[in-house]
Amino acid sequence: MEVRARAPGKIILAGEHAVVHGSAAVAASIDLYTYVSLRFPTPSDNHDTLNLQLKDIGLELSWPVGRIKEAFPESSGCITSSPTSCPPDTLKLIATLVEEQNIPEAKIGLAAGVTAFLWLYTSVQGYKPAKVVVNSELPLGAGLGSSAAFCVSLAAALIALSDSGNQDFSREGWLTFEDSQLELVNKWAFEGEKIIHGKPSGIDNTVSTYGNMIKYKSGGLARIKSNMALKMLITDTKVGRNTKALVASVSERAVRHPNAMTAVFTAVDSISNELATIIQSASSADLDIVEKEEKVEELMEMNQGLLQCMGVSHASIETVLRTTLKYKLASKLTGAGGGGCVLTLLPTLLSGTVVDKVIAELESCGFQCKIAGIGGNGLEICFNISSS
Amino acid sequence: MEVRARAPGKIILAGEHAVVHGSAAVAASIDLYTYVSLRFPTPSDNHDTLNLQLKDIGLELSWPVGRIKEAFPESSGCITSSPTSCPPDTLKLIATLVEEQNIPEAKIGLAAGVTAFLWLYTSVQGYKPAKVVVNSELPLGAGLGSSAAFCVSLAAALIALSDSGNQDFSREGWLTFEDSQLELVNKWAFEGEKIIHGKPSGIDNTVSTYGNMIKYKSGGLARIKSNMALKMLITDTKVGRNTKALVASVSERAVRHPNAMTAVFTAVDSISNELATIIQSASSADLDIVEKEEKVEELMEMNQGLLQCMGVSHASIETVLRTTLKYKLASKLTGAGGGGCVLTLLPTLLSGTVVDKVIAELESCGFQCKIAGIGGNGLEICFNISSS
Repeated sequence: MEVRARAPGKIILAGEHAVVHGSAAVAASIDLYTYVSLRFPTPSDNHDTLNLQLKDIGLELSWPVGRIKEAFPESSGCITSSPTSCPPDTLKLIATLVEEQNIPEAKIGLAAGVTAFLWLYTSVQGYKPAKVVVNSELPLGAGLGSSAAFCVSLAAALIALSDSGNQDFSREGWLTFEDSQLELVNKWAFEGEKIIHGKPSGIDNTVSTYGNMIKYKSGGLARIKSNMALKMLITDTKVGRNTKALVASVSERAVRHPNAMTAVFTAVDSISNELATIIQSASSADLDIVEKEEKVEELMEMNQGLLQCMGVSHASIETVLRTTLKYKLASKLTGAGGGGCVLTLLPTLLSGTVVDKVIAELESCGFQCKIAGIGGNGLEICFNISSS
Repeated sequence: MEVRARAPGKIILAGEHAVVHGSAAVAASIDLYTYVSLRFPTPSDNHDTLNLQLKDIGLELSWPVGRIKEAFPESSGCITSSPTSCPPDTLKLIATLVEEQNIPEAKIGLAAGVTAFLWLYTSVQGYKPAKVVVNSELPLGAGLGSSAAFCVSLAAALIALSDSGNQDFSREGWLTFEDSQLELVNKWAFEGEKIIHGKPSGIDNTVSTYGNMIKYKSGGLARIKSNMALKMLITDTKVGRNTKALVASVSERAVRHPNAMTAVFTAVDSISNELATIIQSASSADLDIVEKEEKVEELMEMNQGLLQCMGVSHASIETVLRTTLKYKLASKLTGAGGGGCVLTLLPTLLSGTVVDKVIAELESCGFQCKIAGIGGNGLEICFNISSS
């Protein structure tokens, strides 16, 4: 029995940074996924290890389940009904298990993800031997929610095959979870995100779990239903950045220029609200899809200007903007800025030739481009009974 | 007897476009000048034409004073005590005199300036024959106040040699006018600007007349005294733009997004006020020149982001920004945007080698760079008695 779960990445359509200062923000799922496959060995396999393969990274880790039990005896396992935070002492014990794997220096950034994996796995499945394989279409650390997509798909796979999973394994194709189970997955994923990020907002795992779009403000989340098919070019500048330092720099600027920055955050709040309204509104004779796209483009341009005003742009981002501007396409950075990813709206009527040209020009600058549909499905799972 | 007058160009340091919507703006003089030399022939010259040479443009025009008197008899002349607007009928008569000169098509944009010249000349000096030579360090139509500098230096030269000029011709070097005469020059220059621009704000001629800096808001002007020596690199993108269309596009955006844009204009207002405060503040142990420059740079970056949010940037402007950013220099567009000029602060401690590199790189893009001191003297005159 094998279960596969897939969970999407996310982009921030409007409001990054300003959200920290009380403005509304809008996040949306993208149709780029992280896939987690979970398979338990049959008794005849005589297999007693927990195996984790991170395919894209080329990392394979393996622990004898006895070693996990020894290092980490207090894990109760099978407590899927009540996701809990990993206690600091347990975190230390898990860290020992991770250290023993001697992850190469270049991949040491993944240690927190591996720690989250061990906590989620043992919390839901205890000390069962298993093989877990992870594939992802999402670049790591680029602000596209790769860690949340990993935690969501992992938690879903674990819960699907747990005693309380209550799944009909005979159904075929990609299936959705019931609401109560989505809620459970989202909570566990948030616990994993805490191990990876310290103080995550909960936006990434919520978007990855439920898909579609979310408007959030001062801790409150509202799921919104998109009424337009948006397609974005996502350009990864591959410039790494320090999100904490960028958030701090905006706060410092707000301290130095309180009046100006308060007004800037107010402007962003309006933009996020307008964007949510346009995306939710039904297309009609009064406002057809082209007009809606033009409005979204204008709001993206405005939001980008305000992000530049906050000081979180970067030469690489400006290069993307300048390149897409040549083709009259609107772009904005998404996420923390200072590098990372840039969104470019691809209007419905844009020719494929132009898209190819833009991508070729951006990739010649050393950037990596992906086209993504915006606001699609969240978490889905798929069973494969024949697999043993 | 020859008089030379020189009047500076201007830049907008903060607040362009937003000023139309009620925000404060800050304009400053630059040490790039337009020079007007005025010389009357001696009786022995037997010279009866009014001659205008625009040296930089390579245009020389000449009218027999009898022809001017004939076409334009109602000019009273010598009415320097009360500058008045050129009546529409008179404007038509002057237009005939300008048309007769058959200005080449490529230079026809100067016709309004020539019209302003004839109105100011005859209003102050009547039908005297004279030779007027104009030189300028200011590019035309680039938003650096070239027309105002022309009107101010012309009016000053005309008034200096008028009966009411009341000048001590024996003083040497560049001299300043008394306040009452500056006021007179400023008013005449404004009348000239009206012929050239239709509805000028009066900022350009005021800055050119008085020099230094001006803060203005909703029609109110306040002269401010700079307490720091600012040096800017002014990059002319040489991309022409339509100021009226740009102003209209910002207004349209404000109609489409009233809440967001109101907040944007509020942010700009704060930036202009902060900038004026920093520039006026005395340097001290608490805030030395380097810190003051860093604050100005931050405010420039913020203002530029807000201008991008208004949608008045341009690919050429972005190229300048990206180039100067590589050298960690802060830039913003100045004036209407959509091309035109970009300001880059040159900090006191910046090495000449870096400045040379930046200029070389910008000029390799086809732009033209000038270094200008900011907030210097306004109008000055100089007599040359030996000249006959």
